[in-house]
Amino acid sequence: MPLLFNRNAISDVLASHPEKARRLLIRQGHEKICEDLIEKARKQGIQYRILPADAFTKKCGTSKSHVCLERDDFIYTDQDDFLKKLDSVNTPFLSAFDGVQDPQNLGNIVRTSVCLGVDAMIIPKDRSCMINETVANVSRGAVEFIEVVRVTNLARYLDSLKKLGIFCYGLDEHAHTVLWEIDLKGPVCLVMGGEEGLRRLTKETCDDLVRIPTNPSFSSLNVATAYALASYEVMKCRY
Amino acid sequence: MPLLFNRNAISDVLASHPEKARRLLIRQGHEKICEDLIEKARKQGIQYRILPADAFTKKCGTSKSHVCLERDDFIYTDQDDFLKKLDSVNTPFLSAFDGVQDPQNLGNIVRTSVCLGVDAMIIPKDRSCMINETVANVSRGAVEFIEVVRVTNLARYLDSLKKLGIFCYGLDEHAHTVLWEIDLKGPVCLVMGGEEGLRRLTKETCDDLVRIPTNPSFSSLNVATAYALASYEVMKCRY
Repeated sequence: MPLLFNRNAISDVLASHPEKARRLLIRQGHEKICEDLIEKARKQGIQYRILPADAFTKKCGTSKSHVCLERDDFIYTDQDDFLKKLDSVNTPFLSAFDGVQDPQNLGNIVRTSVCLGVDAMIIPKDRSCMINETVANVSRGAVEFIEVVRVTNLARYLDSLKKLGIFCYGLDEHAHTVLWEIDLKGPVCLVMGGEEGLRRLTKETCDDLVRIPTNPSFSSLNVATAYALASYEVMKCRY
Repeated sequence: MPLLFNRNAISDVLASHPEKARRLLIRQGHEKICEDLIEKARKQGIQYRILPADAFTKKCGTSKSHVCLERDDFIYTDQDDFLKKLDSVNTPFLSAFDGVQDPQNLGNIVRTSVCLGVDAMIIPKDRSCMINETVANVSRGAVEFIEVVRVTNLARYLDSLKKLGIFCYGLDEHAHTVLWEIDLKGPVCLVMGGEEGLRRLTKETCDDLVRIPTNPSFSSLNVATAYALASYEVMKCRY
């Protein structure tokens, strides 16, 4: 069962998705500063317990935090169900990740997605970080606000999206077209590589490749940062 | 003495700033996969040593890495020297951070700054993370490519910049003006809050405040992400 330590994340689950919360744990002596969270839990009928310092550390595996929420495992959206549902989404704004391995990056990506209005994220079942505890904490609770579709074969899934009229743009530093030269108003899926860039097959499946111009002597943007810039352009086109 | 573990960071120091490198350490049994780094060190006349696994772990404090570079402490740019030097910079593009505390964020900020062409970063001496080992590693070596000015009083320093004709834009989620509505072609300093936003005095010192429109039900962008979006707009205006 994943444990949330980030206060914002805990607060969001208690407020917006109480059905996912199991139990709130507080380190003894910190009842006062966790009053707001205890109050929220109480209102939603969620169990809470004050634990002696040692028991808290043992249970939660950390001595740094004073509060922790046990929550249900993250539930992914089924890949076929999602395709069926897409019909009813007004101008879908999706993103796909070709093997992001670092939970810190994936957590940032989830947070940015929710802030900038991405409808759903697509990640492959293999060779990719899943929505785990670290991702949930780094995202500051944004995992509660987005659908994540786990797919068996990313290239094949992008093909299905293309058949539904969704334009797939891959980000690639060697692309000819610059990000801001394209029209991103229509249904779109941004396709990002993992920490090592896009794989060949994924690249070939994209409708077009775009690049973000960077400093030639130090060009490597972090994947979460490059994704933020691309998502920002989509959001801006639709604002 | 800071220790670098990130291979890109190590490679960049050896290639571009060998004068900052002290000694390359390799965990015994990993000479082969570190061949490129050993070769670089040899060429630059930098000492290297193969250490038995235990000695490597003891010296470097980690069992995860196989290679490590001891490098000199990061040298900050003097605040007065920098003001004098600014005259010779063609349309300065600066950024200031009002107390970023998290080294992960600061590392990402440094990397983004270098990628998107920021000339120098300004950080206060108090209540801010410094350019430490974590920052250097997270930045993937970008710390070698940027000037960082450490200032005693951020608001006063922004005043000095304004007197030199540099327009100071603060990022604030409650601002009226939207980021992309402003002209960022001239000399500019982006002013970012720490993880908790801009302080009142800093905010009042800025020439203008701008915001990035986000999802009203989940609006809080990570500081490094918000900074990336603002820097991207500046880069784009000048492209």
